[in-house]
Amino acid sequence: MNATTLRVLSPVPTDIDIANSIEPHHISVIAKKLNLNPNHYDLYGKYKAKVLLPVIDELKGTKDGFYVVVGGITPTPLGEGKSTTTVGLCQALGAFLDKKVVTTLRQPSQGPTFGIKGGAAGGGYSQVIPMDEFNLHLTGDIHAITAANNLLAAAIDTRMFHESTQSDNALFSRLCAPNKQGNRKFNELMYKRLKKLGITKVKPEDLTLEEVKRFARLDIDPESITWRRVMDVNDRFLRKITVGQGLDEKGMMRETGFDISVASEIMAVLALTTSLADMRHRLGKMVIGNSRYGDPVTADDLGVGGALSVLMKDAINPTLMQTLEGTPVFVHAGPFANIAHGSSSIVADKMALKLVGPGGFVVTEAGFGSDIGIEKFMNIKCRYSGLRPQCAIIVATIRALKMHGGGPPVTAGKPLDPVYVTENVGLVEAGCANLARHIRITKAYGVNVVVAVNQFSTDTDAEIAAVRSAALAAGAYDAVLCTHHAHGGKGAIDLGIAVQKACESASGPFNFLYPLDASIEDKIDVIARSYGACGVEYSKQAEKQIKMYSKQGFSGLPICMAKTQYSFTDNPAVKGAPSGFVLPIRDVRASIGAGFIYPLVGTMSTMPGLPTRPCFYDIDLDTITGKVIGLS
Amino acid sequence: MNATTLRVLSPVPTDIDIANSIEPHHISVIAKKLNLNPNHYDLYGKYKAKVLLPVIDELKGTKDGFYVVVGGITPTPLGEGKSTTTVGLCQALGAFLDKKVVTTLRQPSQGPTFGIKGGAAGGGYSQVIPMDEFNLHLTGDIHAITAANNLLAAAIDTRMFHESTQSDNALFSRLCAPNKQGNRKFNELMYKRLKKLGITKVKPEDLTLEEVKRFARLDIDPESITWRRVMDVNDRFLRKITVGQGLDEKGMMRETGFDISVASEIMAVLALTTSLADMRHRLGKMVIGNSRYGDPVTADDLGVGGALSVLMKDAINPTLMQTLEGTPVFVHAGPFANIAHGSSSIVADKMALKLVGPGGFVVTEAGFGSDIGIEKFMNIKCRYSGLRPQCAIIVATIRALKMHGGGPPVTAGKPLDPVYVTENVGLVEAGCANLARHIRITKAYGVNVVVAVNQFSTDTDAEIAAVRSAALAAGAYDAVLCTHHAHGGKGAIDLGIAVQKACESASGPFNFLYPLDASIEDKIDVIARSYGACGVEYSKQAEKQIKMYSKQGFSGLPICMAKTQYSFTDNPAVKGAPSGFVLPIRDVRASIGAGFIYPLVGTMSTMPGLPTRPCFYDIDLDTITGKVIGLS
Repeated sequence: MNATTLRVLSPVPTDIDIANSIEPHHISVIAKKLNLNPNHYDLYGKYKAKVLLPVIDELKGTKDGFYVVVGGITPTPLGEGKSTTTVGLCQALGAFLDKKVVTTLRQPSQGPTFGIKGGAAGGGYSQVIPMDEFNLHLTGDIHAITAANNLLAAAIDTRMFHESTQSDNALFSRLCAPNKQGNRKFNELMYKRLKKLGITKVKPEDLTLEEVKRFARLDIDPESITWRRVMDVNDRFLRKITVGQGLDEKGMMRETGFDISVASEIMAVLALTTSLADMRHRLGKMVIGNSRYGDPVTADDLGVGGALSVLMKDAINPTLMQTLEGTPVFVHAGPFANIAHGSSSIVADKMALKLVGPGGFVVTEAGFGSDIGIEKFMNIKCRYSGLRPQCAIIVATIRALKMHGGGPPVTAGKPLDPVYVTENVGLVEAGCANLARHIRITKAYGVNVVVAVNQFSTDTDAEIAAVRSAALAAGAYDAVLCTHHAHGGKGAIDLGIAVQKACESASGPFNFLYPLDASIEDKIDVIARSYGACGVEYSKQAEKQIKMYSKQGFSGLPICMAKTQYSFTDNPAVKGAPSGFVLPIRDVRASIGAGFIYPLVGTMSTMPGLPTRPCFYDIDLDTITGKVIGLS
Repeated sequence: MNATTLRVLSPVPTDIDIANSIEPHHISVIAKKLNLNPNHYDLYGKYKAKVLLPVIDELKGTKDGFYVVVGGITPTPLGEGKSTTTVGLCQALGAFLDKKVVTTLRQPSQGPTFGIKGGAAGGGYSQVIPMDEFNLHLTGDIHAITAANNLLAAAIDTRMFHESTQSDNALFSRLCAPNKQGNRKFNELMYKRLKKLGITKVKPEDLTLEEVKRFARLDIDPESITWRRVMDVNDRFLRKITVGQGLDEKGMMRETGFDISVASEIMAVLALTTSLADMRHRLGKMVIGNSRYGDPVTADDLGVGGALSVLMKDAINPTLMQTLEGTPVFVHAGPFANIAHGSSSIVADKMALKLVGPGGFVVTEAGFGSDIGIEKFMNIKCRYSGLRPQCAIIVATIRALKMHGGGPPVTAGKPLDPVYVTENVGLVEAGCANLARHIRITKAYGVNVVVAVNQFSTDTDAEIAAVRSAALAAGAYDAVLCTHHAHGGKGAIDLGIAVQKACESASGPFNFLYPLDASIEDKIDVIARSYGACGVEYSKQAEKQIKMYSKQGFSGLPICMAKTQYSFTDNPAVKGAPSGFVLPIRDVRASIGAGFIYPLVGTMSTMPGLPTRPCFYDIDLDTITGKVIGLS
């Protein structure tokens, strides 16, 4: 069967069986639908293409389409089908409502695919295909991030090592080694550093001894280093490690650790950058720690900003794929939704908005609920992109609403309590307090909010009616039932129509939650109050960090709260719509290159582990057909 | 200027300037020259394509072309231009002698590109282009290896962790978790393990307590683990590390380390595999260490062999690129030439031999001299592939011969002694003892040997005549001067003609140096004697390992000597053609999946470092054109 001729079965087969039953179009067919010609993209096999950045400039004169962001209520650990709804809505808009549409999604981390989670391409009859390529390697962007992140890490430790074993003059003499003609010269990166140090001399031989020292010796304080290594594998034993134990490293051991690659600041840079030049600039100004004098040390100080940009030069181009019903999808960037902002890239959205043009739709996903997802989407991503959505979708499930209404805990891998599969309108009504708060938070940005109820087979009409009525009472533009998991785009036609109306009737004005020039504390405070908190409590460490970042001149950055997605509070067990709590801020860190300060509300794990029986037990290759089996 | 219309400048510009001055053909043009149609390959951008494995089967009926391997004399640390000669020869054969030709090269490691070394795409007017794509990322094969290698590493530590905290029954119950219908079942990988344990039962509930324990508990001896993590970055601080220091890891710390990715056994598997099914089999049987009872523990025992194959499924397809003169190149696999066999892949050679067909040429490179390169090429790679070369080229430089004749040390980064740039026939003649031994070693396999003198501007006619005469006296089929660095293919026409004659007159028979069924010691002994050694001395540790591998049933594998490339002996300072030395074997390890035992003659560094001023200081992106600058 060809993509665009979906025939659905009941019960719904497994995701990989559905994905394997559809023959995708050659990606050039999808590109052509967007009026792209072969000069606009690079093929990566038959079903993926990287669309090249200059397309944005070429379409400068075209007006943007409608911009729709998909968020959710506070989720259960099972997820509420946000990606599936995003894909299903686009299949409806493109394949049934005859709209130009592009879905923009994050690239999933490969590590969890082999752990518990399985793939992230949507599900049922609303998927991105080929799903194995979507989940594994894709076009190599995450691999490029891993390589760049770890080159910078190696540069840090090696630089400290060489500084510890060499005199100022020896260091300087090696850094400005003579060329073939025997002349010593500074290169461009070195001029950047000289300028930062306030040294205006242009010839290496003119520097005073003191200037030589200041130039050549970064004097990184090992305790201050925030840059960690990364790997796209669930490897819990790398969370905390000691490096430099080889004899040749002369005892320069140091405690550090690995994060999963998508938690790299370089991933957040990729998601927030707007051009090659902007990416080069951001990568160079990433701060890895401080000198012993308290000055921030950057990638460009280490001489490696250019090399990082070279490693990332292809990654900046979004990858074009397709849905089961042949609508185009951009997969690009996948920043961690806890310590980063969790939205796909600005460049993919910008490109997509031009490609669909006026009357068309770009539907993108924000991570988790309005606290963790939509807030960051609006105040970080939209701030940097200049783009403004007309409509936000909040995906809700009866299951999650029942949990918020007081149902027993929902745990991954354990059977569901019967309350979740039998009618209980009371629990649903009580849980709608959570939905109502997400609606109010989201509406405050000046967008129309459409609630999408992602239907499960056990949901009843009365339960769904309760949600619709609560949603409208809370100010939603509309609330619509969807069955795209079971029916593909056809199951999201109503949602598509509602979204179209919401976009056409959007009248703004768009409001940020806070101005950038407020103090770091004031910005954190206003975000916490939007959650329902009555105030914020800072640890000593958090106060120290805020002072430091303010002194270093970084207080004008937006804020990216690192908080659990399972509650408005810092405690994942607190469901519903709690109020009057104090939000604790345990620490404050910064991603200067990406461009945000991130307060840690709790301890965020940045490296997942593997269970006793990881999914990889079921994954194999059919060596006759070359097809992947067992991926879920 | 278009590839195939090379106009050379003098003096020769920098490699990147030459590479950037040529507009490569779209890779489909190159593919068409090989009679490949778009169904035969996947494009990766405009200048790279992965040619799909089924091409080999499709051409089963076609006879192979000539098979030429390029080796060298014992090199200086500056290299003798082996890759450049390989590329230059192919440009001559293809662009001037009108032959069908494919070059098969290793993919270079990305790490060293940012360290001291610079790129590995050849040099001067004999290069593979685009050189930045050749040196960085390529089509992601090394990234796939990194991912697969590290998934296996994570599986090892996590399994030990879960085994340490769970009872036999709890472990078993999780490994054979009930499906949705509540049934427990073994999967295929589990049947493999049961078979290995001699358990013939098919239902989980039928196992005795003792069998449950044997099945579920791998009982890996942490001291025995030989599997390390890898990264394609020169990160010396990862050479020796302690993992598992996080509180959640409950004190299960372990000393281990990272190698550079190309040193992964998975890279050696990729280079030696012959099909998807063979790769699946090899990846599954890779041994990561022993159980506490001394039994080898494999990737399939850990349940991860299938997932590794899925990660590697695209990497098995060779990448097609082109030379400066538009001749086709396969870039595929790049196993470490010290601890592995250092040759590009079998599948690329097989495919290329069919594509050029009778009368055509496939020219491939073996690492370093005949001791480290050609020996492994013949006894490991050709043994597994079944392919037999007709001709071997030995690349020599006047510089290296002078060093072997007694010239002062040649050190990277230091100025050359004047003896290397002024005529000194005596030193050259004395150094030819080294060349003569490489010729004799190589001839013994039954191939014709052609010596290629890679000319530098300071070489004199008398010096070159001395080499030619010594080469012919040692039994070389021919000895030819080449200037392909300065002139491209035109500079290697004579070499091309000599190679053609050598191939056409090859009469075999082909001889291996040792039979596989000899003992490990006997095999090591015969290899050592081919170097000129009078015998071998084993450490206690080496003897212990040989006994263990023999007991485990691995003594029938070929041998891959891990020895310095800078001397026939274990001491890099001993030049020329030494005899009568005893070769020390310090340790013996095994790559069971790749299929060889590797004795360690010295300590091989498997993770390079970065200097005080790494190349990355000069590398940057031109953000207007998107071009890479400063790559050398």
